[in-house]
Order: sequence, then C-alpha cells, then structure tokens
Amino acid sequence: MLGVLGGMGPMATVDFMAKVVRNTPATRDQDHIPMVVCSAVRIPDRNAAILGDGADPFPAMRETLLSLEAAGASCIAIPCNTAHHWHTALQAETSVRILHIVDAVVDTLVTGDGDCIGVLASSGTVEAGIYRTRLARRGFACRVPDTAGQAEVMRAIRLVKAGQVAEAAIILREQAEALVAAGCGRIVMACTEIPLALASIEGGLHPLLIDATEALARACVEACSVSAKAPALPLAA
Amino acid sequence: MLGVLGGMGPMATVDFMAKVVRNTPATRDQDHIPMVVCSAVRIPDRNAAILGDGADPFPAMRETLLSLEAAGASCIAIPCNTAHHWHTALQAETSVRILHIVDAVVDTLVTGDGDCIGVLASSGTVEAGIYRTRLARRGFACRVPDTAGQAEVMRAIRLVKAGQVAEAAIILREQAEALVAAGCGRIVMACTEIPLALASIEGGLHPLLIDATEALARACVEACSVSAKAPALPLAA
Repeated sequence: MLGVLGGMGPMATVDFMAKVVRNTPATRDQDHIPMVVCSAVRIPDRNAAILGDGADPFPAMRETLLSLEAAGASCIAIPCNTAHHWHTALQAETSVRILHIVDAVVDTLVTGDGDCIGVLASSGTVEAGIYRTRLARRGFACRVPDTAGQAEVMRAIRLVKAGQVAEAAIILREQAEALVAAGCGRIVMACTEIPLALASIEGGLHPLLIDATEALARACVEACSVSAKAPALPLAA
Repeated sequence: MLGVLGGMGPMATVDFMAKVVRNTPATRDQDHIPMVVCSAVRIPDRNAAILGDGADPFPAMRETLLSLEAAGASCIAIPCNTAHHWHTALQAETSVRILHIVDAVVDTLVTGDGDCIGVLASSGTVEAGIYRTRLARRGFACRVPDTAGQAEVMRAIRLVKAGQVAEAAIILREQAEALVAAGCGRIVMACTEIPLALASIEGGLHPLLIDATEALARACVEACSVSAKAPALPLAA
C-alpha cells in the first residue's frame, strides 16, 4: 500500500494521486494501487522554515509519517519538493522506504538533455540545494532564476495555492523561457504547485518541461508493482 | 479531520478530493480541511454484490471505516453512490458521522426542479432503491433508464473505470437526454464515475445535471467548517 504524506499543498496531493491512478495499468478498481493519504494541511510552511522565517515543520511531518506507517504503508511518497529538505531525517524515523522526488526526476534525464538543467522551485528548495546536490551526483549542472526571477516564481507558487492559476502560468512561463534562453536543455517543474499552472501550456516550451509530480507518481507505480510481484509466501505444505 | 472511505473507484476519490479543495475558501495550505483518505481499491465490487453476483464488500468497508476512525476522522464521506447501500450498517459501527451522498443531493433540489428527477446510476444503486427512497421522502419522484438504457449506463461506468472516458460520455449523454425527453427536470449523475465523463459536456443538457460528488464535497466542507467554528474548550481559569 502506497502511503502519501500530503497536503503540501492539498491540490498538489490530488494532482499526484491522479497521476498515480493514470499511470497504473488497470481496467477495474481492484487493479489499482491501494493508497492511504494524509492531507496534513496544518504542517507549517516548509519554505518559510528553510528561510529561517517560520515554525519547524518536522514534528508534524514525523507524526503524519508514523500514522501512515501505522496504517500499513509499505512505501511512502511526499508530493512536495520543498519537504524533501527533511527526507533524510524522516527516513531515519521509519524502515518504510520513502521515495525521493529528485531521484525520480533525475532517473528521467538522459545525456541528450544538455549539461544544464533549469529548476523552477520554491526559494526554500533552491536555498537548501535539494536539486543542485542530487543533479550534481549524476553529472548535471543546475540553473535557477536570478534573484528577481526567483521572487516571481515564489509569487506564482502562492497564487496557485490561492487558486489563481492563470496569473501564475504567465509568470512561470516567462521564468521558464528565461532559463531556456540561458542555455538550459530541460526545465524541471520542481514545486508540486507549478504543474497545476504550467502543465497544460502549449507551444515550444512544453516538450522541455519535466513534471516532478509525474516522475514521482511513475516511480511509485513501479515500486508498488515490484512489491506486488514479489513471490507470495509458500502455501502450507 | 475529514475521513474518506475511497477507492471505489480511485479516480472518483481523486475527483471528490479536488471538489473538496476547490469548495474550501482558502488562500494557503493551512486554511484547507485536513483529510485522511483510504483508497481501498480492493473492496469487492458493490454493484455485483447488490445484484447477487459477487463477494460481500461490507467487511472490507467496515475495516477501512474503522481505520479512518482510528486515524482521527471526525466526519466521514464515501465517494461511491452504490456503497451507500451499506450506509446504515456502516453508521451502526461508528459514532463518527457518515454523511449520506443522497441527502447532499436532495438538499440541492428546489421545488422548481419538477416532480420527477432522473437518476443515472449503477444497476446496484437502482436495484437497492438508494435514490428512490430518499427522494420520495422529500416528495420527489424518480425515473431511471429502461432495461436496455440501464445496461448502457453500466457499460459506460465500466468504460470510465478502464479510462475510456470519451466513449462513456457519448453513451451517458444519450441516456440523460432520454430522461429529459421523458419529463425529468433534473438529472442526477448518481455514480461517482459519471461526472468524470459527463461533467464537461456543453450544450443545453449541462445546466440540468446535478453532480452528486460535488454535492457531497460541499456538504463535507460545510460540516467541517461548522465543527472548526465550534466553541473552543475554555482555557484553564
């Protein structure tokens, strides 16, 4: 059973679940992956905490993680990029595997994607180096918007959380195009709010975008399918 | 915290959650309703069980219900119309309020909607009289497709579960139009798979449709907002 430490934000969790369902080969309910989902919306703001301007979200994330474990999750996903700043600390609290969203993204990259990957993320994700570190391990450099551009990305993320998706899309498209102009071969939508605004855009930018939520969903389907195919316990002799 | 006894089917649960989020007045994550969701996809087919052709889903629904209660749900929703055949039996197992999807729908009806309400539902929902009974209590008659039409509705529901939404929409539109032609003032999409196919259709039929999933989501937002506004315990004197 897939456990989802969600609610960061709630619509991003819904988007992630939809991507898990759509990526599962199934013709009836019973073919799908069982999930237990906590939409723990009261977890304090991750971005603010990383930037030193808010309460520590770790205790609430830990509590939610343990309730997913108690509910029987055999594999856990966190559809919030910024929350992955606490991935190592959360993994230390449980023996249940917590998939890492950046590993799921990096697994989709190929050499032809160029040396430099653009990252549209929350300022907390950028500041904590969540993408930079794991991209570098696989030989990819990473570029983020300049200070003014990054402030615009944060404004767009907040607009999505407030339901103002169309306005956010205009801002995000502009920042993505600036990264392409600066030489990035692919652009990661590295905040789960961003695909809610940018995924349906059309034109030349679209094929360059990588949806981190989709990458995590596919990795979860694969992880859960592998465990479903594990040999069953032998029947009593 | 809203508990969701879901997975019947999984995309219908996602659709329900999206409708809860969209109907919640919020500008940031922390304004939203906390949810715990079980996508219990292995619950045996409800429709088959009512028609005497499948395993009893009640034990699996009861187990999921109790895990939602254990996780702290203070109000529970079941985004599956057919599953409401077991609503009374499930409610008897817990002191946590389980909202009823048909009550949520009936609460949206007004006298001007005509004496006869069309119902597009699974054959199990029709056979069990889930809508007929509760509509009658409020003075509304109920009409469902004829035998051949009802078989078509069931085929469309299965197509949605298999991801073939466009084909399902054609069938459902035809059945809905037949109910309108037979004198129904409003048509309830009374299976949570149906809005996944029919909600975005355009034309004269659209304003006559009632989305049971949306009605349940709004009832949940209201129920959870009321409990959030309940007076807090007095501080220690």
